[in-house]
Amino acid sequence: MTQMVDLRSDTVTRPTAAMRAAMAAAEVGDDVYGEDPTVIALEQRVARLFGHEAALFAPSGSMANQIALQLVVPPAHELLCDANAHVVTYEFGAAAAIGGISTRTWPFAGGQLDVDVIASMIRPDGYWAVPTRAIAVEQTHNMAGGVVIGLDTLRALRGVADAAGAALHCDGARIWHAHVADGVPLAEYGALFDTMSVCLSKGLGAPVGSVVVGSAENIAKARWIRKRMGGGMRQAGILAAAGLYALEHHIDRLADDHARARRLADALAPYGVVDADRVRTNLVLLDLSKTALDAHGLAGRAREQGVLVSVIAPRTVRLITHLDADDAAVDRAIAVLSPLLAA
Amino acid sequence: MTQMVDLRSDTVTRPTAAMRAAMAAAEVGDDVYGEDPTVIALEQRVARLFGHEAALFAPSGSMANQIALQLVVPPAHELLCDANAHVVTYEFGAAAAIGGISTRTWPFAGGQLDVDVIASMIRPDGYWAVPTRAIAVEQTHNMAGGVVIGLDTLRALRGVADAAGAALHCDGARIWHAHVADGVPLAEYGALFDTMSVCLSKGLGAPVGSVVVGSAENIAKARWIRKRMGGGMRQAGILAAAGLYALEHHIDRLADDHARARRLADALAPYGVVDADRVRTNLVLLDLSKTALDAHGLAGRAREQGVLVSVIAPRTVRLITHLDADDAAVDRAIAVLSPLLAA
Amino acid sequence: MTQMVDLRSDTVTRPTAAMRAAMAAAEVGDDVYGEDPTVIALEQRVARLFGHEAALFAPSGSMANQIALQLVVPPAHELLCDANAHVVTYEFGAAAAIGGISTRTWPFAGGQLDVDVIASMIRPDGYWAVPTRAIAVEQTHNMAGGVVIGLDTLRALRGVADAAGAALHCDGARIWHAHVADGVPLAEYGALFDTMSVCLSKGLGAPVGSVVVGSAENIAKARWIRKRMGGGMRQAGILAAAGLYALEHHIDRLADDHARARRLADALAPYGVVDADRVRTNLVLLDLSKTALDAHGLAGRAREQGVLVSVIAPRTVRLITHLDADDAAVDRAIAVLSPLLAA
Amino acid sequence: MTQMVDLRSDTVTRPTAAMRAAMAAAEVGDDVYGEDPTVIALEQRVARLFGHEAALFAPSGSMANQIALQLVVPPAHELLCDANAHVVTYEFGAAAAIGGISTRTWPFAGGQLDVDVIASMIRPDGYWAVPTRAIAVEQTHNMAGGVVIGLDTLRALRGVADAAGAALHCDGARIWHAHVADGVPLAEYGALFDTMSVCLSKGLGAPVGSVVVGSAENIAKARWIRKRMGGGMRQAGILAAAGLYALEHHIDRLADDHARARRLADALAPYGVVDADRVRTNLVLLDLSKTALDAHGLAGRAREQGVLVSVIAPRTVRLITHLDADDAAVDRAIAVLSPLLAA
Repeated sequence: MTQMVDLRSDTVTRPTAAMRAAMAAAEVGDDVYGEDPTVIALEQRVARLFGHEAALFAPSGSMANQIALQLVVPPAHELLCDANAHVVTYEFGAAAAIGGISTRTWPFAGGQLDVDVIASMIRPDGYWAVPTRAIAVEQTHNMAGGVVIGLDTLRALRGVADAAGAALHCDGARIWHAHVADGVPLAEYGALFDTMSVCLSKGLGAPVGSVVVGSAENIAKARWIRKRMGGGMRQAGILAAAGLYALEHHIDRLADDHARARRLADALAPYGVVDADRVRTNLVLLDLSKTALDAHGLAGRAREQGVLVSVIAPRTVRLITHLDADDAAVDRAIAVLSPLLAA
Repeated sequence: MTQMVDLRSDTVTRPTAAMRAAMAAAEVGDDVYGEDPTVIALEQRVARLFGHEAALFAPSGSMANQIALQLVVPPAHELLCDANAHVVTYEFGAAAAIGGISTRTWPFAGGQLDVDVIASMIRPDGYWAVPTRAIAVEQTHNMAGGVVIGLDTLRALRGVADAAGAALHCDGARIWHAHVADGVPLAEYGALFDTMSVCLSKGLGAPVGSVVVGSAENIAKARWIRKRMGGGMRQAGILAAAGLYALEHHIDRLADDHARARRLADALAPYGVVDADRVRTNLVLLDLSKTALDAHGLAGRAREQGVLVSVIAPRTVRLITHLDADDAAVDRAIAVLSPLLAA
Repeated sequence: MTQMVDLRSDTVTRPTAAMRAAMAAAEVGDDVYGEDPTVIALEQRVARLFGHEAALFAPSGSMANQIALQLVVPPAHELLCDANAHVVTYEFGAAAAIGGISTRTWPFAGGQLDVDVIASMIRPDGYWAVPTRAIAVEQTHNMAGGVVIGLDTLRALRGVADAAGAALHCDGARIWHAHVADGVPLAEYGALFDTMSVCLSKGLGAPVGSVVVGSAENIAKARWIRKRMGGGMRQAGILAAAGLYALEHHIDRLADDHARARRLADALAPYGVVDADRVRTNLVLLDLSKTALDAHGLAGRAREQGVLVSVIAPRTVRLITHLDADDAAVDRAIAVLSPLLAA
Repeated sequence: MTQMVDLRSDTVTRPTAAMRAAMAAAEVGDDVYGEDPTVIALEQRVARLFGHEAALFAPSGSMANQIALQLVVPPAHELLCDANAHVVTYEFGAAAAIGGISTRTWPFAGGQLDVDVIASMIRPDGYWAVPTRAIAVEQTHNMAGGVVIGLDTLRALRGVADAAGAALHCDGARIWHAHVADGVPLAEYGALFDTMSVCLSKGLGAPVGSVVVGSAENIAKARWIRKRMGGGMRQAGILAAAGLYALEHHIDRLADDHARARRLADALAPYGVVDADRVRTNLVLLDLSKTALDAHGLAGRAREQGVLVSVIAPRTVRLITHLDADDAAVDRAIAVLSPLLAA
């Protein structure tokens, strides 16, 4: 029982024995030379899943996002995104500091997109303003609690982007969860975006890696950008093998994570900290603003009792279910958090 | 009558004969060496007006703003501003591309600041997010139609910034107009901001130049930033002399520009394109969204009849009164625009 | 006699009465809108002088250089230049920090170019290295003591650049001096370069301004870069008028400055600090390495006696003759410096 | 015999069975949270080897170098390095484009350092020039053919850096080879540098990864820079385990690679393309400039016969020995290349 229950993030998962075996057996080559067969297989597989021409493996979701943004927004041009988007908030200023990309943000509204508001922010060429070159959305939306953006909304946004000649980027770190929750084929998502980043090391449970998806022309450019950012790895097939395994075995099971997250939410909803009906994927945000608790305090006391949660704002705590959090772990989290929230 | 009436911007003013005489007589030196007595006099004068320790002359408002932002926001850190702020919209991506500054924007709401919204956007250190280092406001707000932000609002925002350890920058391109419209002493504005940029070549009628205002320590750094950006000019006293003249003679007369703008608004309000009561300074925005007109069309037809206006969005036209637009010019603009709007 | 003799730089010149009159009478407009007739006249004049399609006025030589470099070298590509070139040394890191331009430098060798060395440094595409996109030269070469690069050398370098598909940029801050010293028509220089920056506020005596010269397409782009860098000025015709006056009246007279520099060098050569035969334009470098003097000490003692010189390295002092340094000034400098050097 | 002999680089090595076993068994955690025990062990081990306080794992040598450079050179300040240094040549402009770092280069002279030349290039503060903040050297020097810089030279350079207040960075991608060739303890190298990057995936044979070495304070900053650059990986212990294995088992054996490289050089020296006495580590450069061959042609014909070599300049071919190139491979390379060179 001394084992911690770790619900801070789905990034904490450890590779399973079968995944380790796949890595140990991986055929590899020098991927900087484009010669690692397992990396190539992974890239082709991911490209095909989303109906795109090509893909590129990257050491992290942040790098995958930033490579994609550099593909679609030249320096001194503009990206529009949510004020709480990972790309503008949790990537340490990379878009501006590395890509020279100017950002304006629409108001964070619980992950819901108001397409009219976004449309009104676009600046066409010719008005002396920094021209908008791309719009980024996050599927599912982390800071909004794993909210799934509906296909109709995304299609409307695609129309807005097309009308403006702007690219549409998807930060799809958890797009697998949207796919499972809404039953939308991955290729149907893929058809809506110019570039995507999708992550293997969050819900899917691989140890390392994300993939940039796009046109063959863009992915060729992406290889150079990745090299400049220091993301060119050698025998990366070791990591790609884990990714291939995860794609094969760890997508459908996300439904279990979703059910566990919902169970968590149902159990904690009575304390007025979460609307359980909004929990459709693997994230649960606890809003402490109507309690006397602050996030660091709650997290600290939970930790003392063996449950780890994330503090993502002074009054907000995040719990994420994942491959390494089974039913017992969720039971334990409920048992620890309930009395703390009741206090 | 072949003379155009030019209401596109107050940047179009030409120096008066007296201002030209002041320039011609200016004592000068090499300002890159810090030896131009007229530049020094202007910088000291402006610093004193706003109650700050020091100031620095710059060739444009954009450079003055960008120097100030670089002073208060390190690369890969964050600036918050209005989604329609000049610093993020009309300076061609300089904050990101030159300063490496990440920006998030609060929704444009007609120039009014919702201090609570801004406060909620600030990210303190320690939450894995890009830390907010500065907030920028624009006084008066150009894209909002010359709206004056009230002193109470600014004081509340100062409190928010202080609580967060963030700097407050004022893009004061037209702060003179706020001063004249609200009767607030310039030093009272100055006391609220860490850095300011104020412009000599807009409402004040000087041909060239803006001034960065701040602490002695920051202005010393600003000299180096200005040099790197290519803003170190030699015998700039020629230009500074015009600025000094403008400070002496062209502030109080802004009340005339305000009255003329209000007269324009009163005359055009019946066409449903402007709320005249909101016109308190020298800007008039015509919102064509409830008419059948588009901005380029209206501007084109007005130009044919000798009246120049700015197209600032597909359905928005801007008129600005200034030193070179007298009562007759306003009469002419009303005479030309009224029938076009009535159509 | 209390008047200082200022030989620190030719940037210190003050506009003459006739130049001031030209400025006071200048017809002006808003140059950010491209409507200042005097600026347009200056730009056309300079473009024509060098046989180029177009030109753009800028507030400083540094900005003119940096705009030009951004035109010919994309971010993360390479510029080759002299290790003592102004563009890499005295522009405060702008090429890298603003343009994202990577630089490699050839050894400084007294301003002489070894075209074979430069050719050997060029990296063509396809070798995994940052590709070389431009080569910059400085005519005359400031840190080399105003050395004039010969036409044959420049032509050979043009051949090298052509063979590599690289652009050739001229930092022509003092190209007027090369023209006067070598009798090479300005257009003959112009024909050799893709982009040039030429300065009005150094030897030519205008108070402010440099000009970027290039193709019509590049200069159109340059307007946007200038705006981003904060170099868009409004009624800049005031300054351009001085530039036009200088082009008319102050080029031929540079021969006087050259003669005075040579006279200085002849007088100081006996102290072993300068090879007078190398002084062919308006710069004189005193190399103190074979004396017991250091540059700050010498400059300080000269200043006490009313003569200002520049310290450009711990053991190097620079003297520059110019419009405001007449024969008497040179006599005075010789009288002051000789005993100090003799000591 | 259909297996290719791959001497393009030591980056092409594939993990051995024992190394794969170590990876498969690695204990892991989320390294972005600083919780991967194997990564921590690797970082502590490498720090200790070089006698530094701390270290940070990175996905590539380029990222390790660029993180280190950002630690010691602020944007718009200067780095000095060899004109053929990896950091300025083969990292795709990252120092300028990402770090905003200005570079000047000393002439490439076969990897030998002329400390006096370097000293003369340093610009102290206070001379209006971009101040030099760091000097980078490469040990061994790739483009010079694996040349080892002697300890005396490095000590003299350390003195120069100290006198100037500049940092000294070592691109130690192949510092293990210098250690083996010269018998200098790694800690003796470590004592000379402020920051180092050392590579696990070149000669040491690990599939992925380099390590930044420095002070505890700098490495704490480095974690943030790595995150911004997209180098934060999750269960990176899989990769670190290979690194630990390589440190244990693959350093001493580099002597074999050196011997094989020397054997290659001895065999090819008769064709006038290499001075075998200069081959002291695992690199052999073939200089074709005195032959009728060009590098692409030679490499192409060798490839047809099953031997892969690198083209690093139009007339230069590089061969590198490594873990996966045994005596038979070297024999085969000699057998293929000799007649091609003899032609």
